[in-house]
Amino acid sequence: MRTLDSIALRFDGRRLSVLDQRLLPDEEAWRDGDDPARMAEHIRCLAVRGAPLIGVAAGLSLGRFALSGASREGFEAAAAHLRAARPTAVNLMHAVDRVVAAYRAEGPEAAWREAVALFDEDVALCEAMARHGAALVRDGEGLLTHCNAGALATVGVGTALGVVTRAWAEGKRVHVFVDETRPLLQGARLTAWELRRAGVPHTLLTDSMAAVVMRRGRVQRVFVGADRVAANGDFANKIGTYGVAVLARHHGVDFHPVAPATTVDLTARDGDAIPIEERDPAEVRGAAGAFGKVRWSPADAPAYNPSFDVTPASLVTSLVTDRGVLTRDALADGGLPRLLGATR
Amino acid sequence: MRTLDSIALRFDGRRLSVLDQRLLPDEEAWRDGDDPARMAEHIRCLAVRGAPLIGVAAGLSLGRFALSGASREGFEAAAAHLRAARPTAVNLMHAVDRVVAAYRAEGPEAAWREAVALFDEDVALCEAMARHGAALVRDGEGLLTHCNAGALATVGVGTALGVVTRAWAEGKRVHVFVDETRPLLQGARLTAWELRRAGVPHTLLTDSMAAVVMRRGRVQRVFVGADRVAANGDFANKIGTYGVAVLARHHGVDFHPVAPATTVDLTARDGDAIPIEERDPAEVRGAAGAFGKVRWSPADAPAYNPSFDVTPASLVTSLVTDRGVLTRDALADGGLPRLLGATR
Repeated sequence: MRTLDSIALRFDGRRLSVLDQRLLPDEEAWRDGDDPARMAEHIRCLAVRGAPLIGVAAGLSLGRFALSGASREGFEAAAAHLRAARPTAVNLMHAVDRVVAAYRAEGPEAAWREAVALFDEDVALCEAMARHGAALVRDGEGLLTHCNAGALATVGVGTALGVVTRAWAEGKRVHVFVDETRPLLQGARLTAWELRRAGVPHTLLTDSMAAVVMRRGRVQRVFVGADRVAANGDFANKIGTYGVAVLARHHGVDFHPVAPATTVDLTARDGDAIPIEERDPAEVRGAAGAFGKVRWSPADAPAYNPSFDVTPASLVTSLVTDRGVLTRDALADGGLPRLLGATR
Repeated sequence: MRTLDSIALRFDGRRLSVLDQRLLPDEEAWRDGDDPARMAEHIRCLAVRGAPLIGVAAGLSLGRFALSGASREGFEAAAAHLRAARPTAVNLMHAVDRVVAAYRAEGPEAAWREAVALFDEDVALCEAMARHGAALVRDGEGLLTHCNAGALATVGVGTALGVVTRAWAEGKRVHVFVDETRPLLQGARLTAWELRRAGVPHTLLTDSMAAVVMRRGRVQRVFVGADRVAANGDFANKIGTYGVAVLARHHGVDFHPVAPATTVDLTARDGDAIPIEERDPAEVRGAAGAFGKVRWSPADAPAYNPSFDVTPASLVTSLVTDRGVLTRDALADGGLPRLLGATR
């Protein structure tokens, strides 16, 4: 049986495993991914995170479950369970739907083949995005990113961070500013770890420092991921992305979401149609992770904790996809429906 | 001997004490303030923080030292030591200079009287700012603040937060959004604690959430403190303030620094002349306080840690001072030198 290998997901021919990203950067622990209920829990608790990775991981888990001799009812229930693990992640819905369709049409073997196809497609999508995005980067530029849209978020080289590491690999001397990304600190924990591994020069910032770094002329370009892109180019991404987009606009810094076309949801006409998860306010009152659990605000402080925000397409310089780059004008002019329609 | 009392500084007639603000919100511990070397250390390590409080605390400590029979050389050395504890805080320089001048002219008793005058003046300054600022607030408005410019930062009702609590006391139904203010979390630790004590409705946010709260129309007005104001109205304040100012401009939200005229430094023509402290990058790699010490980024992650940023006067709707409110146009038109010159 063919094996699969990426930074955060592995199939060794017998067992599907996922890296518990909550323990990074200090520890690399792998978790069982064969049981869909456990995989759903890994996704829900953010051990497995990043829109593309979530989709592939859920699909492979479901494929493994089909092969293990699950009943039809059990399989359908597992699919529903996985689909509900993260309501904002459209890749998750797409991936589960494809594996379910293959199962219904041709049975367990087809479900597994479809899941492996999801893996291969994600690797290819990342490569294509990295190529298109890196072409925008000039030698010597300062870049800024928010959250983690790297190899850890996909099974390939990543989306936004794949662009950055590709530009570096092409010999462009870039410097990357990394927002720590409160409340869950994916920038500080994951992006800093990935960039160090890749040898790309970088500087960690609190989210509140991005503005002054831009004002000092140290940033020419922002690359961020996207969890869901509406038909008009508005997109949802980790909380804080919208603020970075406003700062970029004010400072004349180019701003690029990077996402595969599979992240586009044409049923969402604009950003208002994208549902936004709210998480436990306790996450805002302190921080928790492998490093421990601390609270610094009053124990009962009222707090707000939206996981995502929506950035309007009007603040986007261009959207980098695996099928090419769409400028703000192209997005406003129906570029996304055309891009998707033309190749479907 | 007359006693002095405020939330974070006390003189009971025998002993000067300061609240160790690093232990808030969970514990109230008081520290000795009679020894200027210890007071300088309290200021340096942020046990005592807030530009106005730092000035009064340093002045009183120096006055106590003079009364204790210090030698002239010892007194002058203590003054120099206190002055160097926080290079960006102009109030500290002013306060120390006044106590030193009184000592040189008339001796120890005069030094103490001058220090007590600093206390009384700060109480009056806060009252005046609160009155002028609260007049800007309309019933039902959403307000946002960054860092802590409250009673804890002064010996009176505070600067920016004094405005907020005054508006509330006047019967205006406001709701305050509180930026947590990474890396040292003064908003989460101190401002949330103060607003709870004062009974003002509030919601804690990560710094990265201010943008989306503004976009949703929940914020009409921002009040922040200022550590130093240049002659043209540019001002230095806690890192992150500048970003909030940019977001406010983008969303048509009014933006008001609140600071006593003593915070104005006419020798600084504009913000470029204000020196910016950089602190230990370890503060950005995690968080530390009474709650413990945690690190979430790679141990050797390169990090940037400016303590302050400078907001240009062009982003200010109006500056609230104890002597009245200056609009952006008034600031551009030499309003600050005129305000200070006219009353000196």
